Amino acid sequence: MRVLGIDPGLGTTGYGVVELTESGLRLCEAGTVRTRPRDPLPERLRALYEGISEVIRECRPAVIALEGLYSEYRFPRTAILMAHARGAVCLAAAHLDVPVASYPPAQVKNAVVGVGNASKAQVQGTVQRMFALADPPSPNDVADALALAVTGCYRQGNPLVVNAR
Amino acid sequence: MRVLGIDPGLGTTGYGVVELTESGLRLCEAGTVRTRPRDPLPERLRALYEGISEVIRECRPAVIALEGLYSEYRFPRTAILMAHARGAVCLAAAHLDVPVASYPPAQVKNAVVGVGNASKAQVQGTVQRMFALADPPSPNDVADALALAVTGCYRQGNPLVVNAR
Repeated sequence: MRVLGIDPGLGTTGYGVVELTESGLRLCEAGTVRTRPRDPLPERLRALYEGISEVIRECRPAVIALEGLYSEYRFPRTAILMAHARGAVCLAAAHLDVPVASYPPAQVKNAVVGVGNASKAQVQGTVQRMFALADPPSPNDVADALALAVTGCYRQGNPLVVNAR
Repeated sequence: MRVLGIDPGLGTTGYGVVELTESGLRLCEAGTVRTRPRDPLPERLRALYEGISEVIRECRPAVIALEGLYSEYRFPRTAILMAHARGAVCLAAAHLDVPVASYPPAQVKNAVVGVGNASKAQVQGTVQRMFALADPPSPNDVADALALAVTGCYRQGNPLVVNAR
């Protein structure tokens, strides 16, 4: 089973594809979709939508694991721009008929690191060791996306596809 | 010149089409696109995207006047869901090659009512009188969308299409 983890952002969206096989988890692919800050918002969302659509078509995931919504945001304006990007990702998933599961950050950290308030560096380090990578996945968005994909794989025995909120 | 005003919301998105003619402003059409609260978020965004795409294809606006982002939000969670919807609207506009202009609420109230802190009821009343409607446009989302479209029409002499943020 292949899971595509996505950490959405208007400037940089991280993605990571993880496959659950009989011998364990395998990292298939990871990267970012970036948009140009000078472009109008609709243009940036189109670029993100197209980039993510391409990843979905290429990796054909069974499910997309998307970062869930926080209950509180420290930077509302950033959160609002992120939500535009998250909307574009959800639309790409809907148009390509891939279900979306949504995992809150604490749940992802718990699943991957073992503690719900793990730091970004801890997530990076754990993902690096898990897939025996030479370097920690960078930027952070890629590490977070891979952690989301891993969480999605771990949860395959449980009802995987929850209504994304 | 025809302007499509859109007041995006995840549950209810208001839209209104206003045409600027030699004899003044004419209301062409107005309504809402609603999504089902029980559906998963990607499904709701797809329904909104399709509803707005249909309106755009039918009314062929020169520009879309979209509610701008506030600097502060009283209800961050609502604002974040609204931003998902706003992203879907921006994508529909981008995919159908219609430019998007973004007007902050205070600017719209100023353009329509004459004061930047006008109440929702004042906006409804002004839009009702402006187009000699039997009743105030309802729900509020429709009145706001028409006010956005009117603002877009008023601004036609000025650089109309700003980079939407």
